[in-house]
Amino acid sequence: MSKVERKKWSENFSEWYNELIETAGIQDKRYPVKGMNIWLPYGLKIMRNIERFVHSEMERTGHDEVLFPALIPETEFQKEADHIAGFEGEVFWVTHAGHDPLDIRLILRPTSETAMYSMFSLWVRSHADLPFKVYQIVNTYRYETKHTRPLIRVREISRFFEAHTAHDSYEDAERQIKEDLEIFDNLARFLAIPYIISKRPDWDKFPGAYYSLGAEVMMPDGRTLQIGTMHNYRQNFAKAYNIQYETETGDHKYAHQTTFGMSERLLAAVIAIHGDDRGMVLPPTIAPIQVVIVPIPKKDAEADVFAYAREIAEGLRAAGIRVHIDERDIRPGRKFYDWELKGVPLRIEVGPRDVAGRKAVLARRDTLEKLVVEREGIVEEVRKTLDAIHENLHKRAEEFLESHIKRVETIEEAKAVFEDRRGIVEIPWCGEESCGLEMEEALDAKMLGTPYPEEKAKAPEGKKCPVCGREAKFIARFARTY
Amino acid sequence: MSKVERKKWSENFSEWYNELIETAGIQDKRYPVKGMNIWLPYGLKIMRNIERFVHSEMERTGHDEVLFPALIPETEFQKEADHIAGFEGEVFWVTHAGHDPLDIRLILRPTSETAMYSMFSLWVRSHADLPFKVYQIVNTYRYETKHTRPLIRVREISRFFEAHTAHDSYEDAERQIKEDLEIFDNLARFLAIPYIISKRPDWDKFPGAYYSLGAEVMMPDGRTLQIGTMHNYRQNFAKAYNIQYETETGDHKYAHQTTFGMSERLLAAVIAIHGDDRGMVLPPTIAPIQVVIVPIPKKDAEADVFAYAREIAEGLRAAGIRVHIDERDIRPGRKFYDWELKGVPLRIEVGPRDVAGRKAVLARRDTLEKLVVEREGIVEEVRKTLDAIHENLHKRAEEFLESHIKRVETIEEAKAVFEDRRGIVEIPWCGEESCGLEMEEALDAKMLGTPYPEEKAKAPEGKKCPVCGREAKFIARFARTY
Repeated sequence: MSKVERKKWSENFSEWYNELIETAGIQDKRYPVKGMNIWLPYGLKIMRNIERFVHSEMERTGHDEVLFPALIPETEFQKEADHIAGFEGEVFWVTHAGHDPLDIRLILRPTSETAMYSMFSLWVRSHADLPFKVYQIVNTYRYETKHTRPLIRVREISRFFEAHTAHDSYEDAERQIKEDLEIFDNLARFLAIPYIISKRPDWDKFPGAYYSLGAEVMMPDGRTLQIGTMHNYRQNFAKAYNIQYETETGDHKYAHQTTFGMSERLLAAVIAIHGDDRGMVLPPTIAPIQVVIVPIPKKDAEADVFAYAREIAEGLRAAGIRVHIDERDIRPGRKFYDWELKGVPLRIEVGPRDVAGRKAVLARRDTLEKLVVEREGIVEEVRKTLDAIHENLHKRAEEFLESHIKRVETIEEAKAVFEDRRGIVEIPWCGEESCGLEMEEALDAKMLGTPYPEEKAKAPEGKKCPVCGREAKFIARFARTY
Repeated sequence: MSKVERKKWSENFSEWYNELIETAGIQDKRYPVKGMNIWLPYGLKIMRNIERFVHSEMERTGHDEVLFPALIPETEFQKEADHIAGFEGEVFWVTHAGHDPLDIRLILRPTSETAMYSMFSLWVRSHADLPFKVYQIVNTYRYETKHTRPLIRVREISRFFEAHTAHDSYEDAERQIKEDLEIFDNLARFLAIPYIISKRPDWDKFPGAYYSLGAEVMMPDGRTLQIGTMHNYRQNFAKAYNIQYETETGDHKYAHQTTFGMSERLLAAVIAIHGDDRGMVLPPTIAPIQVVIVPIPKKDAEADVFAYAREIAEGLRAAGIRVHIDERDIRPGRKFYDWELKGVPLRIEVGPRDVAGRKAVLARRDTLEKLVVEREGIVEEVRKTLDAIHENLHKRAEEFLESHIKRVETIEEAKAVFEDRRGIVEIPWCGEESCGLEMEEALDAKMLGTPYPEEKAKAPEGKKCPVCGREAKFIARFARTY
């Protein structure tokens, strides 16, 4: 049997997570403003690796990076009615500067539609400007009144990713949503995290959206975490902010718009999904240290062991692998503990016998298995093992997700699933809001929406909505959410 | 004679600069909050290249990257008396969230001492933790009441760089200041910008500092721009925020601290210093496009010329050079104009004759000189030319700076220098604040301080302070500043 223990991880996830964020060096939660945390160097390095991938995907797909001010005038913020209704209860207000009140109050952006779109109306003039695709990674602010949790529910989202696009037609905006989903899928594979996409019910759309998609992952306690959203705004914001373009025939039309959003929740998902009772397990793609070498010298052979460790490190480094030798003067057991906590995917142990026999011991963080390898060919062996770790993490998480999605037909069955807060329940649904809300109430759960793409959303023939008893049109997903 | 014209650049710099920021695609100034501008993709790319160098220097010197919240509670902000006195007139206040007033008001950080140092008091415990070196690149806010100007004087400094360190002694803090100066010098050479370092007079220190150093560059209109600062705080903040460490003998001592700050003014300096009447001239180190290839096809040979351009581009790209082919369907003259405005350091023109003769024309942006080169060996030629451009930019700027520093002995001489707002004046000074302030008043200029390192600050023997007539101790520098 595997030595991997995931008892605390699954049974007391909340405590496990809150401790780990600090002990593994991700964030310090002692900053004296509730819901605002400090990124520590190690956590920030991991996040930067995630961001680097996002930047490269944005570049690949022709999005330009921009950077808007964090402050939005009240007057701009108020132009789109649904949007302000959705956000005004949770924005921070800047009312004074120096010793004086401001003429026009400013909000700290909760998201940047209202900052960007009056500029879009200046930038987008002609059909030749379309599609227009920009993105930024910035700090945003929401006055969360619920319980806050690092990286997951915070008042300062310090790594908020938002792409905003404008198009000449609904069809082209739809093509953009497809591209967003492709980017998201690449990113999820890069992070080894399986996910599901749901189309949100109308009552839970992003304020101002025509429709909203959400990407959810399964957390260790069976609750879901939304880690990405894509919204098709149709012409809703374009009309509020007057984003018009001249067509080839000289007409003026409102642009169609979409957005795509993510945040440091991506890192929360990675930490939560891959972890175990010993701490984090990082996918090699984003691990600041992919391989840690722990020399285990005997008294009479210290120099040899260290020299051997350095020789191996050099070879790995030359092959582009991020490697670190732990030369601290503490016991090896303590070093193992530290690097397991920090999720370094692969540990190499070298002792005098390894030096003599030109060997080394590889210890996988995901399975905790050990493997003796030859010094020759160690680079290839390490590379193969890192790939295998990535694949295994993805597979294990996929099995976890799949085993936590249950399709049922009655409210009672659904309740039974939620009894121990386990996973996602799929129930036939007639499509009426009242029935959906009644199910949310009965299950004390949120409707994530219907499976996406839409061909997957249809209920099988003959299924009934368990609330009204009418023919079910859709499959609706419910979950307890973060 | 060179074709390089710098008439508008020098005689009407302010207008030149304000136009260029928008026409060259650096920032859009139409955002509806005064002093807050939008980074456009091209400008942001240049800034990212500058930041990348800063990150690598920080890593080289053992600084860890952190990220603090942008909001600071009023209670933390008020712990250091000089600091709050210096900043309280220019901070933005967050007073409400959602529909309610906050219990404790928050400021938007103008700089992060007061955000960081209560955490430093938790992080720094023992002499083994020292030196402690962190940095971040973040958005900061100052309610500027003076005339604002993009990248130079803004209410949102969106790329504020700040390194903060703690040390076990004054000597180690001094060593840190030296390291900061070395980092700054590497960066300035990377940007091809010459500068001077001055030790600020006591009345112009950073609020809370024991002493402050400032790095200035010479702008085209003879005014100076501060683009970097280094502060030694001694134990001033450590006492206010209780940053103590245990010594090897078990005593508790307050840490010594320093900071090092820069911002997007670095980019302003690059734009201003190297520009000419045609637009920007970017040092190849930070140019998003180092080489632009403009195909100049004749009607009968289009395919050949484009193929030849692509072949050259591929060779350059393989050599790690950032190259772009302008295949737009507009006249070559228009293309030249665009890329000159955007400061691309080197243009390659290829026409049918070049294809036939296996040649190409290199056009340098800095000197506007053209050079015919062989297709074979073009990569080497381009590399050499890019290096020559960098060197020439630095040399030209150095001459400009040197020719704008004048040493004088009387107020009248100094006034004559400032008559047309030209440059830096160095005057003997007794060291008394009253005399310094009187000179500032008489010259309508700011005392930048005394030359640094301090051995350069001493007045030559026998020189008198022109205000009080006493023996001069120092050379004091005065300038009209941005």
